[in-house]
Amino acid sequence: MIRTLAVVGTGLIGTSVALAAARRGVTVHLLDTDAAALRTAELLGAGTARPAAEPVDLAVLAVPPSKVADVLSEQQRRGLALGYTDVASVKAGPEREVLARAPRPAHFIGGHPLAGRERSGPLAARADLFRDRTWVLTPSRLTSKRVFDRALELIALCGGVPMVMRSSAHDETVAITSHAPHLMASLVAARLGGRPPVTALLAGQGFRDATRIARGEARLWTDIIETNAAEIAGVLTALESDLGRLLTAMRDLSARDPRNRVRSRADLTDLLERGVAALEALPAPASGPLAAGTARVGVTIADRPGELARLLGTAAGYGAGPDTVTAPVAPHTPDGPLVIRFELAAAEADTLVEKLAAAGWAAVRENDAPGTSPALAAARG
Amino acid sequence: MIRTLAVVGTGLIGTSVALAAARRGVTVHLLDTDAAALRTAELLGAGTARPAAEPVDLAVLAVPPSKVADVLSEQQRRGLALGYTDVASVKAGPEREVLARAPRPAHFIGGHPLAGRERSGPLAARADLFRDRTWVLTPSRLTSKRVFDRALELIALCGGVPMVMRSSAHDETVAITSHAPHLMASLVAARLGGRPPVTALLAGQGFRDATRIARGEARLWTDIIETNAAEIAGVLTALESDLGRLLTAMRDLSARDPRNRVRSRADLTDLLERGVAALEALPAPASGPLAAGTARVGVTIADRPGELARLLGTAAGYGAGPDTVTAPVAPHTPDGPLVIRFELAAAEADTLVEKLAAAGWAAVRENDAPGTSPALAAARG
Repeated sequence: MIRTLAVVGTGLIGTSVALAAARRGVTVHLLDTDAAALRTAELLGAGTARPAAEPVDLAVLAVPPSKVADVLSEQQRRGLALGYTDVASVKAGPEREVLARAPRPAHFIGGHPLAGRERSGPLAARADLFRDRTWVLTPSRLTSKRVFDRALELIALCGGVPMVMRSSAHDETVAITSHAPHLMASLVAARLGGRPPVTALLAGQGFRDATRIARGEARLWTDIIETNAAEIAGVLTALESDLGRLLTAMRDLSARDPRNRVRSRADLTDLLERGVAALEALPAPASGPLAAGTARVGVTIADRPGELARLLGTAAGYGAGPDTVTAPVAPHTPDGPLVIRFELAAAEADTLVEKLAAAGWAAVRENDAPGTSPALAAARG
Repeated sequence: MIRTLAVVGTGLIGTSVALAAARRGVTVHLLDTDAAALRTAELLGAGTARPAAEPVDLAVLAVPPSKVADVLSEQQRRGLALGYTDVASVKAGPEREVLARAPRPAHFIGGHPLAGRERSGPLAARADLFRDRTWVLTPSRLTSKRVFDRALELIALCGGVPMVMRSSAHDETVAITSHAPHLMASLVAARLGGRPPVTALLAGQGFRDATRIARGEARLWTDIIETNAAEIAGVLTALESDLGRLLTAMRDLSARDPRNRVRSRADLTDLLERGVAALEALPAPASGPLAAGTARVGVTIADRPGELARLLGTAAGYGAGPDTVTAPVAPHTPDGPLVIRFELAAAEADTLVEKLAAAGWAAVRENDAPGTSPALAAARG
């Protein structure tokens, strides 16, 4: 059992781990070369800056990927902890370095919690940052069962969902899901540079969402991307080729050459549809209403102007917000009764039916859907 | 004054315009070839599907860009309205077509409200969708003063912020801020296709935000992108060239060739920093706390573990959430008192000071900052 924890690096991730552990009664020792960050974390209640009297049960190295092996080696020599893990978003390079030069590589297991915010530093930390988030562990060929178990315990303390992968498979995957998207967003954002100020006024919510990841701290991200350069270069090469094909289609469309028009338009639609399909196949976020078993509630409404607005307002008051309405309305006959469907967590469906019935609506619970799986989400999309 | 409005196309945007106008007492007539969408909008209280007895004051054509000139011509022949505007996100092509073949091009003004959601259809509509959002008007060389004034009135009814541009400048700009980002997000999303399901589990919030725009309906977006193909091709050509340079740097970094390493790393950091700088120069969203004049509130806190957490919790209860904390904490001396600063709407600052003081904190209102402008936001970044 983890009774004592050390966190090396009190940035966003390290401080959030410390807060989560401290709230579960673990004694947390904080270390950082940045005195202001360390003090802030301490004042947040994340732990104490005093050194531990004896080796702690587990140390979390919350440092950039290129620093993991060095910090591990240094702390193992000092005897900071019995076991070590890290939280860097690149795993293969640091693992190679750990195996090559850490004093006790068996006492280390790579880790990567899939959580983050565009804000950085301890003030952005939250004890629930990892709740229901994937937390990857990448044991090396030398990793001991003991440190593996301690890391699983840490993930449980933080409310995360453990997942075990080889470090190489991890890095190949995050190159696609995180690092290449970050760089593409940086390229898109950088195109604003030097444009007249009016450009910014035409950058709406879509642009802000699409480029949010590119707000990440440039030095940290240089480190991350450099450490995973080979995998990222592979993804970018594929994207360059996809972009080349798209550009051919766009030039044909802008040349208004009727010969290539039909094919170019089909190529464009195909790309857009593949994007939509890939996104709809993503599992619903674990904290969303579809994460557990889902149920459908159907409500028949009267044909009066404003009636639908009144229903949506009432339902929202009982946890069935607009995003739980499943589909555009399509009455069977032009004058047939209109049925609106809400899809929400099975546990909430009965309450909704009861509350809507009490408010005068004809509401019924329909078939339940099983727990969400990627396949189900794809089928639903 | 607009007393009667027609909305042609009861999708997300059309229904939202109708809802906003109906709530301000305007009589709204709804038209759509999709009977289910039309009925849904009516049931939402957005207006009536009955035709108007005489021409309405203004008609809003909420149809895809390639349909604007045809729908305008048809409705002008039928005498639907005295003036017309549209909401399409491409302006130059439709304007050319309107000038070439609409019966009364002087009675039309192009419009584009910068608002949208990834959900579509009337059920996603909201009366406040345009509140504080930029709404571009693109008068043609023939547009009458009368229809221009009516469009300004409509924007005021919807709570939007009017902005006048040439249609060509609009299209050049949205190619950068909307259309090319959409396509880049589609390319990134499409890379997930065919990957093992584990890939999706490593797609975190950053990936979801970055690709959200790519969830837009593929047929509508094919229409939009095709209508602005020439401008988009220009932006994509520049992005292809930027991507080529980045890829060279990534290949150098992955080859671990020490000769090019320093330069390649500098190129990578430069791209990331240019992205961050461009994003920080964006004006704060109009509805954010920094939109009006801002004030700073400084709070001195005692050096006790958890004290900062307690302050943040208290302040959040009075509207000063974590995002209003302005900077990492940097005490002047290792043992000096720690001052935390909140930056929030000037109107809220006095209340915060009062409430914090009542709760026992040493809180003072510091200098006020003037109203936000892009330049100020840039300086702040």
